[in-house]
Amino acid sequence: MGVLLVGGTLWGTGGAADILLEDGVIAAIGAPPHEPVKTIDVTGMLVLPGLVEAHCHLDKTLYGGPWVPHTAGDALADRIAHDLDRRAELGVPDVDRITALLGTMSDFGTTAVRSHTDVDPIVGLRGIEAVTEAADRLADRVSVQQVAFPQHGILTKPGTEQLLDQALAGGVEVIGGIDPAGMDRDPVRHLDVVFGLADRHGAAVDIHLHDGGSLGAWELGLIAERTKTLSLGGRVAVSHAYAFGGMSDRDSDALAETLADAGVAIVTGAVYDFPVPPVKKLQAAGVRVACGHDGIRDLWGPFGSGDMLERARQVAYRSTFRRDDDIELALHAATYGGRELLGLPAEPLGVGSPADLVVVDVPTAAEAVVTVPERHLVIKAGNPVGGVGS
Amino acid sequence: MGVLLVGGTLWGTGGAADILLEDGVIAAIGAPPHEPVKTIDVTGMLVLPGLVEAHCHLDKTLYGGPWVPHTAGDALADRIAHDLDRRAELGVPDVDRITALLGTMSDFGTTAVRSHTDVDPIVGLRGIEAVTEAADRLADRVSVQQVAFPQHGILTKPGTEQLLDQALAGGVEVIGGIDPAGMDRDPVRHLDVVFGLADRHGAAVDIHLHDGGSLGAWELGLIAERTKTLSLGGRVAVSHAYAFGGMSDRDSDALAETLADAGVAIVTGAVYDFPVPPVKKLQAAGVRVACGHDGIRDLWGPFGSGDMLERARQVAYRSTFRRDDDIELALHAATYGGRELLGLPAEPLGVGSPADLVVVDVPTAAEAVVTVPERHLVIKAGNPVGGVGS
Repeated sequence: MGVLLVGGTLWGTGGAADILLEDGVIAAIGAPPHEPVKTIDVTGMLVLPGLVEAHCHLDKTLYGGPWVPHTAGDALADRIAHDLDRRAELGVPDVDRITALLGTMSDFGTTAVRSHTDVDPIVGLRGIEAVTEAADRLADRVSVQQVAFPQHGILTKPGTEQLLDQALAGGVEVIGGIDPAGMDRDPVRHLDVVFGLADRHGAAVDIHLHDGGSLGAWELGLIAERTKTLSLGGRVAVSHAYAFGGMSDRDSDALAETLADAGVAIVTGAVYDFPVPPVKKLQAAGVRVACGHDGIRDLWGPFGSGDMLERARQVAYRSTFRRDDDIELALHAATYGGRELLGLPAEPLGVGSPADLVVVDVPTAAEAVVTVPERHLVIKAGNPVGGVGS
Repeated sequence: MGVLLVGGTLWGTGGAADILLEDGVIAAIGAPPHEPVKTIDVTGMLVLPGLVEAHCHLDKTLYGGPWVPHTAGDALADRIAHDLDRRAELGVPDVDRITALLGTMSDFGTTAVRSHTDVDPIVGLRGIEAVTEAADRLADRVSVQQVAFPQHGILTKPGTEQLLDQALAGGVEVIGGIDPAGMDRDPVRHLDVVFGLADRHGAAVDIHLHDGGSLGAWELGLIAERTKTLSLGGRVAVSHAYAFGGMSDRDSDALAETLADAGVAIVTGAVYDFPVPPVKKLQAAGVRVACGHDGIRDLWGPFGSGDMLERARQVAYRSTFRRDDDIELALHAATYGGRELLGLPAEPLGVGSPADLVVVDVPTAAEAVVTVPERHLVIKAGNPVGGVGS
């Protein structure tokens, strides 16, 4: 049986209409249904695409457990050592905690998630398995795509490459990477491994790049070159891309064009005080931009709520977006940009669009981002799965 | 009749105790009351000082009215022109909107506010009067201290100095200033006027300083020198102080020492993508640090909720504070730091402290900042005035 959303306004369309959901998609807009449906009154409300959490680390989370005071030092190396030291002690990864966090994400209207899952010789594939198990439990509420993520390096952690290979052979859809220069100390060989695995398994690529300044900018160029050479446009993303911070306008213009031409997406979290890539410029240049929380309540830091509308607000705020149309760019990143990143249909909401939706009782998308209202309805594959009005 | 908070834990003390509030102060801790009291069970909850909004612009707010899409251009000059153009059209200042925002601030546990109110030849003292009227309406819930603020310059807007003089003569406690170099083009003469008015009226000083780089750093030094010469230590603050952004550690160490020595406070909002002054370094050097939202839902931008716990989280997040004790520094700024700035008693909560309090149902202060829980109880001058448990 279908669902009829009565009197809702699809984001980006002119006015209110009845929206019929059937077989997991928007089946009709404004037309009376042919058969009995469940009707839900959303008069005057705004219907958005389901939110997409495009960069998180579900496997690391302590969410739902007691507060764990952060004890790592301030340097990146401190946090890596701290993570390795305390992971086992705290029972990370934990399927129940991952499930709790995924449930919260769904409550906040997230319908699809890309999660970077640690793969290393100590944890092996246990993280991948734990996230898979949690995702299976909540499969009717949220889709989860994993990235096999070499958090502690590939070249510098022998055995990791084989494990990444196993993860991809086992069905993981995306191969990760991390600071090919800054962490793994050999950018070309690092990218050889990452892109080699992508090629062998038909996997997408999503590389953490914290390296800043001219080093990070050069690596972005390297990734774009390789993407273009291998015709992997649309299948490659760089997460964080802090190298945009402090870059001249001329350099970032040129880099945006290079990324757009190669088909490399950028994923930002507007994390802590790190630079936020120039969302508006990138989108204008044709670069897909998505966003996510990064860590949520884990050994890397205690912050994060799982609410992607709040995260879109942070992206808008850090981008100094003030006008409605600018603020909507951040929501675009948190919805359509994420869908594109995950390889999901990403056309503007209309007949045929996936019925992964979130309904909020505010008149405009900009107001939704700024005020972060409660979710009235969360819909996954055409079925109401959450929200205060469900 | 007094109020007995049963089983609460005062922030910074060892454990739970009964807390007796009488005559607007904490009258006793752990001792049974001598006379009948109203008891409120806060077992296991954390009792914090009332939050202090140390930098906002109540007079400018559109809060409580319909959403007003932002229409200004991107440059500061655009926003100033936009503000002047649309202020009258939108009925700014408006006592009802100011009252609505103050009420929301109180709901979120704010018990004291410093608000910078525009004073210029067009609006005259109407902003001051509107804020005074709104503050009078809510005097039993929140204290408001105004800054007579020359938003559009002093030297460059003839007539402003006389209006500032009138405002202070009429009871406004603080004289503001703004970018003595960048806006008013004559830093020494600007400070002559500001400090001259402070001297004549016994007013405190709070200067907006957006000027960055070496110019802003030099102005900070100028303000510190003048504060020291005039023995105004503890009565002078600089808001924003973006000049700390990109400053070398050596330079910011020296500047922190200069500010501490002169008794100049720093107020930050962690606003948009502007630099956040080094909160931990400043506090360690003995500089008072307070924080506030800056604009909330006004012609300068649509953001801001009025929740100072959320704002403390933003300060902590932008400061990349991860450890509990670091995160608590942001809460310190949003409570004790604000009390100091406003000239209120700011000793750690104990017998004799003002009974301006907020109670949250989380075990630790760091968790309160990170999770921004609902306010269980808001207490002003010993009286419960809000919170879900009131």
